[in-house]
Amino acid sequence: MQQPILKFGMVGGGEGSLIGDIHCRAAAFDRRSEIAAGCFSRDAAKSAATGRKLGISPDRVYSTYEEMAEKEAARDDRIDFVSIVTPNSSHYAIAKTFLQHGFHVVCDKPVTIEESEAKELERIARQNGLLFCVTYTYSGYPMVKQARELVRHGELGDIVTVMAEYPQEWVLNADKPSWRMDPSQGKSCCVADIGVHIAHTVSYMTGLKIDSLCADMQSYGTLMELDNNANILVKYTTGATGVYWCSQVAAGCKNGLKVRLFGSKGSLEWEQERPDELRLSLKGKPLQLLSRGRDAMYPGAKSFNRLPGGHPEGLYEAFANIYSAFCSELSALRQGGVAAGSEADYPRIQDGIEGVRFVDKCLESAQDGSRWVAVTDS
Amino acid sequence: MQQPILKFGMVGGGEGSLIGDIHCRAAAFDRRSEIAAGCFSRDAAKSAATGRKLGISPDRVYSTYEEMAEKEAARDDRIDFVSIVTPNSSHYAIAKTFLQHGFHVVCDKPVTIEESEAKELERIARQNGLLFCVTYTYSGYPMVKQARELVRHGELGDIVTVMAEYPQEWVLNADKPSWRMDPSQGKSCCVADIGVHIAHTVSYMTGLKIDSLCADMQSYGTLMELDNNANILVKYTTGATGVYWCSQVAAGCKNGLKVRLFGSKGSLEWEQERPDELRLSLKGKPLQLLSRGRDAMYPGAKSFNRLPGGHPEGLYEAFANIYSAFCSELSALRQGGVAAGSEADYPRIQDGIEGVRFVDKCLESAQDGSRWVAVTDS
Amino acid sequence: MQQPILKFGMVGGGEGSLIGDIHCRAAAFDRRSEIAAGCFSRDAAKSAATGRKLGISPDRVYSTYEEMAEKEAARDDRIDFVSIVTPNSSHYAIAKTFLQHGFHVVCDKPVTIEESEAKELERIARQNGLLFCVTYTYSGYPMVKQARELVRHGELGDIVTVMAEYPQEWVLNADKPSWRMDPSQGKSCCVADIGVHIAHTVSYMTGLKIDSLCADMQSYGTLMELDNNANILVKYTTGATGVYWCSQVAAGCKNGLKVRLFGSKGSLEWEQERPDELRLSLKGKPLQLLSRGRDAMYPGAKSFNRLPGGHPEGLYEAFANIYSAFCSELSALRQGGVAAGSEADYPRIQDGIEGVRFVDKCLESAQDGSRWVAVTDS
Amino acid sequence: MQQPILKFGMVGGGEGSLIGDIHCRAAAFDRRSEIAAGCFSRDAAKSAATGRKLGISPDRVYSTYEEMAEKEAARDDRIDFVSIVTPNSSHYAIAKTFLQHGFHVVCDKPVTIEESEAKELERIARQNGLLFCVTYTYSGYPMVKQARELVRHGELGDIVTVMAEYPQEWVLNADKPSWRMDPSQGKSCCVADIGVHIAHTVSYMTGLKIDSLCADMQSYGTLMELDNNANILVKYTTGATGVYWCSQVAAGCKNGLKVRLFGSKGSLEWEQERPDELRLSLKGKPLQLLSRGRDAMYPGAKSFNRLPGGHPEGLYEAFANIYSAFCSELSALRQGGVAAGSEADYPRIQDGIEGVRFVDKCLESAQDGSRWVAVTDS
Repeated sequence: MQQPILKFGMVGGGEGSLIGDIHCRAAAFDRRSEIAAGCFSRDAAKSAATGRKLGISPDRVYSTYEEMAEKEAARDDRIDFVSIVTPNSSHYAIAKTFLQHGFHVVCDKPVTIEESEAKELERIARQNGLLFCVTYTYSGYPMVKQARELVRHGELGDIVTVMAEYPQEWVLNADKPSWRMDPSQGKSCCVADIGVHIAHTVSYMTGLKIDSLCADMQSYGTLMELDNNANILVKYTTGATGVYWCSQVAAGCKNGLKVRLFGSKGSLEWEQERPDELRLSLKGKPLQLLSRGRDAMYPGAKSFNRLPGGHPEGLYEAFANIYSAFCSELSALRQGGVAAGSEADYPRIQDGIEGVRFVDKCLESAQDGSRWVAVTDS
Repeated sequence: MQQPILKFGMVGGGEGSLIGDIHCRAAAFDRRSEIAAGCFSRDAAKSAATGRKLGISPDRVYSTYEEMAEKEAARDDRIDFVSIVTPNSSHYAIAKTFLQHGFHVVCDKPVTIEESEAKELERIARQNGLLFCVTYTYSGYPMVKQARELVRHGELGDIVTVMAEYPQEWVLNADKPSWRMDPSQGKSCCVADIGVHIAHTVSYMTGLKIDSLCADMQSYGTLMELDNNANILVKYTTGATGVYWCSQVAAGCKNGLKVRLFGSKGSLEWEQERPDELRLSLKGKPLQLLSRGRDAMYPGAKSFNRLPGGHPEGLYEAFANIYSAFCSELSALRQGGVAAGSEADYPRIQDGIEGVRFVDKCLESAQDGSRWVAVTDS
Repeated sequence: MQQPILKFGMVGGGEGSLIGDIHCRAAAFDRRSEIAAGCFSRDAAKSAATGRKLGISPDRVYSTYEEMAEKEAARDDRIDFVSIVTPNSSHYAIAKTFLQHGFHVVCDKPVTIEESEAKELERIARQNGLLFCVTYTYSGYPMVKQARELVRHGELGDIVTVMAEYPQEWVLNADKPSWRMDPSQGKSCCVADIGVHIAHTVSYMTGLKIDSLCADMQSYGTLMELDNNANILVKYTTGATGVYWCSQVAAGCKNGLKVRLFGSKGSLEWEQERPDELRLSLKGKPLQLLSRGRDAMYPGAKSFNRLPGGHPEGLYEAFANIYSAFCSELSALRQGGVAAGSEADYPRIQDGIEGVRFVDKCLESAQDGSRWVAVTDS
Repeated sequence: MQQPILKFGMVGGGEGSLIGDIHCRAAAFDRRSEIAAGCFSRDAAKSAATGRKLGISPDRVYSTYEEMAEKEAARDDRIDFVSIVTPNSSHYAIAKTFLQHGFHVVCDKPVTIEESEAKELERIARQNGLLFCVTYTYSGYPMVKQARELVRHGELGDIVTVMAEYPQEWVLNADKPSWRMDPSQGKSCCVADIGVHIAHTVSYMTGLKIDSLCADMQSYGTLMELDNNANILVKYTTGATGVYWCSQVAAGCKNGLKVRLFGSKGSLEWEQERPDELRLSLKGKPLQLLSRGRDAMYPGAKSFNRLPGGHPEGLYEAFANIYSAFCSELSALRQGGVAAGSEADYPRIQDGIEGVRFVDKCLESAQDGSRWVAVTDS
């Protein structure tokens, strides 16, 4: 059956915003949603310019997100959901406002600064029957989903150890501070920005829960108010162990998220910069290079595949996969149904809470001599 | 200044058409054009279904392309251009019809079966002041453009030899014939489908013109009415030489377009399956791996870059680059201006003519004992 | 049983000779042979110096190879075989002399300049029951042997097409001519030096015989008396086809011998610069990366494996494999036995003849407008 | 000047011993030393067989190492040094005996089980003016030496963080215990066997000293008496940090030693399975792939290069580099001189002590809840 095209509004994403642009393209990619309203900037002129560029009716370009929530809620043709792409410290207040006005929410990560905030958002969403998607990009890649299915189907046996890393170099090249480094806007730079991607991608692939961790967080260089490198040991509740490394001062590294899972029967490796490949090594067999679109994929991964093997897909398509699953569940919900499987396969507020807790626990460890701290639901 | 959103119609691209879907997404990607009409299939029901899926008004979904050209031409809100994504043998008639009704054209490759047809299209377009884009996909990749700029700026010195290949495996895996293999629909399968991509990508990167060639074309396996493998020696007018290999029976190869240019001062390599990289080797210096979005790019390449380094771009984005340049030139033309540089950087009917001639010359060589044949403008 | 240590002498290989040094180390590597005599240089002082360095008794360091052959032949403790590592044009006379004095021969490639010379050597060796090894290095690599076994066991099905290349860059960087480029010392530079390696490696892996070929040979740059680049189309007697490319002016290429075999059931790829790997792609299965020492190997390949997987082997070990097989057969012959399988797995004078013929046929083609020429045993 | 060929004896290395065979070939590779005596096995028949195979005079094949040390010490043509390749727990007693009899020593790693033992060996060697080489293989690779020179010359700036790993899979595939896993023969399996290689290779490349570490050591699977996986955080005395991971249960990993150094001005990466390459990324420049034998090397690395670029070198050659430097210093010492630079570039007893201490500190940390422990010279 023909799926309806949902309408959404955006908070943040004014001109020059990379992440806002990505959200817009991703949301539109499958013709499942289109932008209809926005509050793109605290600067009204900038906001209006972005609205014009996106072809939004001027009366639906708002000066404040509060106004937007209120006025959209009052319209017959109100937006179906809001996408929040502002700096992290404002996510909580904005999301809360829209949830309270009855809007479903898509929000960038980390979902909030404080775990208590994320939990409050979870509670409000649940009480109001609203969906809440947190855009952990990398779980949108088909080969990440294939990795997850391989683990689920026992191909790797029991996971023994996990090596995951996310090195970047941008802080090394920065000549002036970014809001990400500003202690007044957050408690962590590196772990909050990219460490949470490691934690979520591993969790998504394996289902492993962290039992305790030991984090050594550093701030190198001169623009160093918050952490820009973290070396983290983890123990999972199963007895498996892992190492997470995230860095923003790793010369030569662009966006090097890489996850390696080692199990009793085999191992796999996925690297964000070559997202269409999966290296799979099963005991006693030669290393296999699985190729998206060419090699057999489990249904839960295949349903997100777009192009035949050898035709590269990238970030926009992964991001679009998240939006499409979210829109599928929202459409199903609208029609009184329940989405399942691929139609409900997107990261949610619970994943957002886990991310915020991960940041908190790393900070707790690092600030107390990098001792081991338990990571349990508080 | 805000660019207008152009309207286009599509001929071909009914449900299940991969290439139609790619054109649609690519055209919409930058909000530079949107689909407004179509004749998606000779089967009216299928065409209507595609029209509904794409949100097109039912009165602009047509039964025949002739009807579409005529009725659209008569509308005040007529489409700005048509995209032709039908099997190759129909390109000529469809394109001619739309040109004659005053529409600009985007057409898949190879643009026609006969060189004379392509030349006729070129003449009509020229006489009517109409743009004609031929979607040689791979010239849309930023790193192909960077390669071209490196050559233009003399970084490689004089080109000495060119190694280019495009191996695929699909014919090996096919269990029934495709229209591509059908002699009643074309004269060549492999060279016409992918050989032309080699020829265009090399030509785009280097500006080299083929002086003569020697082609050994084969048809392996059981589904073998037309060629599915070709080994081709080329001599360029400069004295440089090259080898082109295209295949549809190369086990394990997905979409392996790869171009290596060797010059007197350096060499470079670009591979379609890793489109964000360029390997550059300059005399006396270590091999360099240039990374899209991270390393310095010439303006003509940089203007097509979308994401920061390490965030993969893929086929859709390359395709969108071609549409966006075409739309830029079309908008400029509308406003009485002239596009230049990146705004006019898309493959045209002249490139289409060269492609058809390349196919013809390969056939002429192969059918006469793989002797050398001159490749001059007839 | 304990194998005896054979004694050999060397002609050529004076100080500064890379290839002489490689032969010496390779011959000694498995304690199957040791050097006992030599005529290392036409310069007696240089020859004596090399003899001292190698610990050879001064009375067995000779001024001319004729003297060496004669005097060694007269000794009770005469050498078992001679290794010839001089420039190509002298191979014939030296090899003939030693054969006539009853010595087995190891000779570098190309074995001679003229095919008639190589055939004469073959005849003399045969008539005298002498072994004649031609050191085509690359057939000594275990993964090349594994490739051969995969083909033999039908894993690839029928070979459809072969892509083989051997690019280097040294001529581009040369500031003065080498003997290799000198027309008075040979008829070909590039094809004779490295083209023969392509031809032999493909022949060794597949058993394919060339039926006809079409060669475009060029000489780029200023040091250009003989060819330094060749693009060659080949047809095998089975109907399979191939492309061979060799170059000494390929900027950035070091020693890039690479062979790709495409068959009806699968393909494989071996690259000399990563000799421990073999990429194997079987129809309908993911690409496999076979790793020497880790993954299953056929006995004919495994017997040449030395180190466990992940501990790199290189050129010296491949070269030693050739010497060891030669010594095995020689020892077996001495004891009245017959070597078979791995014990006789080294390239012989017949392979040498084929190499010289290949060079001749390329020249014949290239000098006559790069027309197709038959490659049959004359 | 012509270097003398030194004579050595071996303890351990009976038939079937991989490491004994490697030492023998490495020692002989450059004609700098040759084996003349040995006690290859506690089984006299096996020892005699190995002696015969190596061509050693029967009166110099000994039943016990004590006998060997005593009798060799009494000979006029006594060996110059001994190579010890027995299981780790016997290194101390054997090395001590030979030192006390005035022999220079080459010993495999880890040099002893207890730090006190290693220190005692160091004291005896120093007091007697004897050389003591510990064969940390990987510092013998030319590109590891090049990495060291790049660091020394400041190309990377200040080291910020180090990522080093050494995963293997053999324990996962083992069907019966090895002596390495036996608590009666050592205190650690994984860290002692391969963790020490990480520690030494990093130390060799960077000169960094570990200030404190936090080790999480595990024993997975059923053959688990000692550790087979360890995740280790380190802090260096400079403030830089690092992560070391070693594993013997990492499915698909062969011998994956890999070191990545991230500095304020650039980073580099070296991987043992591709030893001829070095990836160098300098701020603001494209990633460079340095190639042994092709690209510029510092003298201290270049002097260990053997083959031109593109001709692979491997483990035997790296090992031979260690022996050759050791022999150079020993020869210089004999002649009353002092070796320096490359001639003295091999790992010594001090490096051995640091390795044993590293193992001890990892155990100390792991056995006390993976707390941080100081790593200072006790």
